Amino acid sequence: MCLIFFFVVAQKSDEANIKNIFDTALKNGQSYEMLEYLATKIGARLSGSPGAAAAVEWSRQEMIAHGFDSVWLQPVMVPHWVRGKKEIGRIVNSKKQGTIDVNICALGGSIGTGPAGISAQIVEVKNFEELKQLGQKIVQGKIVFFSRPMDPTLINTFEAYGGASNQRGAGAAEAAKYGAVAAVVRSMGSNIEEYPHTGGMRYADGIPKIPAVAISTAHADLLSSLLKDDKDLRLYIETHSQILEDVLSFNVVGELRGSTNPEEIIVVGGHLDSWDLAQGAHDDGAGCVQAIEVLRIYKQMGYKPKRTIRAVMFMNEENGLRGGTKYAELAKLNKERHLAAIESDRGGFTPRGFTMSATDVVKAKVRSWKPLLEQYGLTDFSMEGGGADIGPLGPQGVSLFGFLPDSQRYFNYHHTEEDTFDKVDKRELELGAASMAALIYLIDTYGL
Amino acid sequence: MCLIFFFVVAQKSDEANIKNIFDTALKNGQSYEMLEYLATKIGARLSGSPGAAAAVEWSRQEMIAHGFDSVWLQPVMVPHWVRGKKEIGRIVNSKKQGTIDVNICALGGSIGTGPAGISAQIVEVKNFEELKQLGQKIVQGKIVFFSRPMDPTLINTFEAYGGASNQRGAGAAEAAKYGAVAAVVRSMGSNIEEYPHTGGMRYADGIPKIPAVAISTAHADLLSSLLKDDKDLRLYIETHSQILEDVLSFNVVGELRGSTNPEEIIVVGGHLDSWDLAQGAHDDGAGCVQAIEVLRIYKQMGYKPKRTIRAVMFMNEENGLRGGTKYAELAKLNKERHLAAIESDRGGFTPRGFTMSATDVVKAKVRSWKPLLEQYGLTDFSMEGGGADIGPLGPQGVSLFGFLPDSQRYFNYHHTEEDTFDKVDKRELELGAASMAALIYLIDTYGL
Repeated sequence: MCLIFFFVVAQKSDEANIKNIFDTALKNGQSYEMLEYLATKIGARLSGSPGAAAAVEWSRQEMIAHGFDSVWLQPVMVPHWVRGKKEIGRIVNSKKQGTIDVNICALGGSIGTGPAGISAQIVEVKNFEELKQLGQKIVQGKIVFFSRPMDPTLINTFEAYGGASNQRGAGAAEAAKYGAVAAVVRSMGSNIEEYPHTGGMRYADGIPKIPAVAISTAHADLLSSLLKDDKDLRLYIETHSQILEDVLSFNVVGELRGSTNPEEIIVVGGHLDSWDLAQGAHDDGAGCVQAIEVLRIYKQMGYKPKRTIRAVMFMNEENGLRGGTKYAELAKLNKERHLAAIESDRGGFTPRGFTMSATDVVKAKVRSWKPLLEQYGLTDFSMEGGGADIGPLGPQGVSLFGFLPDSQRYFNYHHTEEDTFDKVDKRELELGAASMAALIYLIDTYGL
Repeated sequence: MCLIFFFVVAQKSDEANIKNIFDTALKNGQSYEMLEYLATKIGARLSGSPGAAAAVEWSRQEMIAHGFDSVWLQPVMVPHWVRGKKEIGRIVNSKKQGTIDVNICALGGSIGTGPAGISAQIVEVKNFEELKQLGQKIVQGKIVFFSRPMDPTLINTFEAYGGASNQRGAGAAEAAKYGAVAAVVRSMGSNIEEYPHTGGMRYADGIPKIPAVAISTAHADLLSSLLKDDKDLRLYIETHSQILEDVLSFNVVGELRGSTNPEEIIVVGGHLDSWDLAQGAHDDGAGCVQAIEVLRIYKQMGYKPKRTIRAVMFMNEENGLRGGTKYAELAKLNKERHLAAIESDRGGFTPRGFTMSATDVVKAKVRSWKPLLEQYGLTDFSMEGGGADIGPLGPQGVSLFGFLPDSQRYFNYHHTEEDTFDKVDKRELELGAASMAALIYLIDTYGL
């Protein structure tokens, strides 16, 4: 009887606290205002750029202004890749009668062609297997065009992204194995658009480095269709990207110290860097301001967490993961005990649930909280996963969670000039912050 | 054993058919293209306007072009209200030192002030009870300002709308009871915005008609705050709206005739009219093109429904419901047997489920299909409701369903100049059409 009474009381107070969290976010939320500053006043903030430095200083000041118990920087050396002058892409038909300009952009980490550019015939392939079949005889001296689209029939657009993105990450290295002179990759976008999507790529040891660019989905379709009639057409690309010396940058950490179990840490974070072409509003300004907002909501409510709650702005998720790696390294070195880490890096859209990378016991415990969360649209706790930046904490036994919003619009904007503040809806964004605050409240209250 | 075998086979074929529906919508969907035409080439289409006539003809031709078995018009007389010249709203402080322009718009159905305008002191109230308390002594000769906002803490924005919209619908009639000279209503918007939201209002028999306008949420806040310091400030409003003679218009109906039970009809519809200020992209261009798309998807798949499936473009939902009323009237007159009617009138956002207005047995049956639908994000079958246009079919015993998409952004755009095509996401829109096609497929296959 007593036990039942306890549960009923606990449930009632959880319900009230979670409602208070959502009410605070929806009535007085500041995620949207913070994001307006980060996205429109600072804007692009690729690792090593002045924008990234501004974002570090802004988020440090923001967390201090909100009165967090402590705020500090974690130094970390980051890659410094620069795009340089705007790229040129041009289809030249084999009879040299006329050219068509196409929208391309260098992929992050790629070397440039330099002012001479590269002009070559095209080999179109859908995957690495096809490339291998063609082999050096066909590929040598050509530009390889990786044209596999994101599968539009997958409801979860992240699955579609996962099914196509190896072309971007490893396409250049694969093509270079067979003597290609450059790689052109169909943009990772859900729709047919004019603008290209940038993103990270990696070279492989012992294989020549060749320039790699993304082409807009509209122009990828155009190129495919022109190739059907004119197999010998050429593509001219000119890119000016460079890899410079590593630069000192920082993760920015702010915390509310736990009242009874301060040694147990719960992290909530996003990544502060963005691609250079974007304002990084959804990717991942949204996640950063939501992480700060979680702690701010607690302060505004007067909620004193038992455990230490940390907002972490990770640096360099996009092209190196140095920040996430450094954070985990320091956690280990300092013998910190992390109970859980939650990342928001899927955009500031309407909440649907959380992904989990944890033991079955922990997953079952979190799913048992569903009755408290589903009225806020948090119904999906089925998927595996945490987040890129918190991933390195996994081997330390930390339970990892990914904030899971609606995914339909994310790949319209991802890594493009279209990832701007006006694409973010205030209510959707604030609801995301409240969702993470609610989950962390439950973890803080009941442990894992 | 046989029975189990049958169920397994049936389930497998349902799964495959529903997947085929979604694949068709996501790979070859035409909702978005249709909506682009309706919203950007035709645009605003208030009942009685040339735009409404264009929309009737466009949708008739569109359904014929898609090869539906029959397409016809149902004549219906509709109200003809016109806004006239752009409204003027101006706050004048009581010492006549300076004025501030505010964004207002006449409410649909309101009389105008005419060129003389109305200038009067303001009485601000949050609800009809407060108005009643003040009574004639205070209200006589003044403008009543209804300032109750939509409750931001309600997760379902339609609930928040429902909690505020009586001010718009009945505010003028209530205020006129106590001698007010005009009514100003805070816009029904989820956020603080500069633009006003129009919408329908009704006068009451035996009570004087006074002009009614909406004021933008930003300017409603401004007005409230200025009133705190200057209770005697005046508001000047000038509106030129008029109620003209009724006009002949039409519902547009297209159908695929059932192969085995043609006498049983399933309706899927939206309303073709929009407010004059808007392109009517989400409200309710989205619902119209999705309804056409349901039938088009079946045709593209080669799926031959057993029952007759009808796409209905209802006319005059916004300010009269004459189309919905006429459709039900004709159904009764012609002794048609409608099994179900589904309306999409909550915008072209990511699908979440369906509302239902039906018997418990029917609701239980539909909920038993959830395992086939939830992988597409259709998880919410909990709410009561159908749709305004299909409502009049209810008394004929027809099971009613409302397509239920995510609601967070809807009241950013609803009834405003911001309800434009660019606010609609292609995947979200196409998923909505597929969701309705899937539900109708199941109703067609198993009955209700």
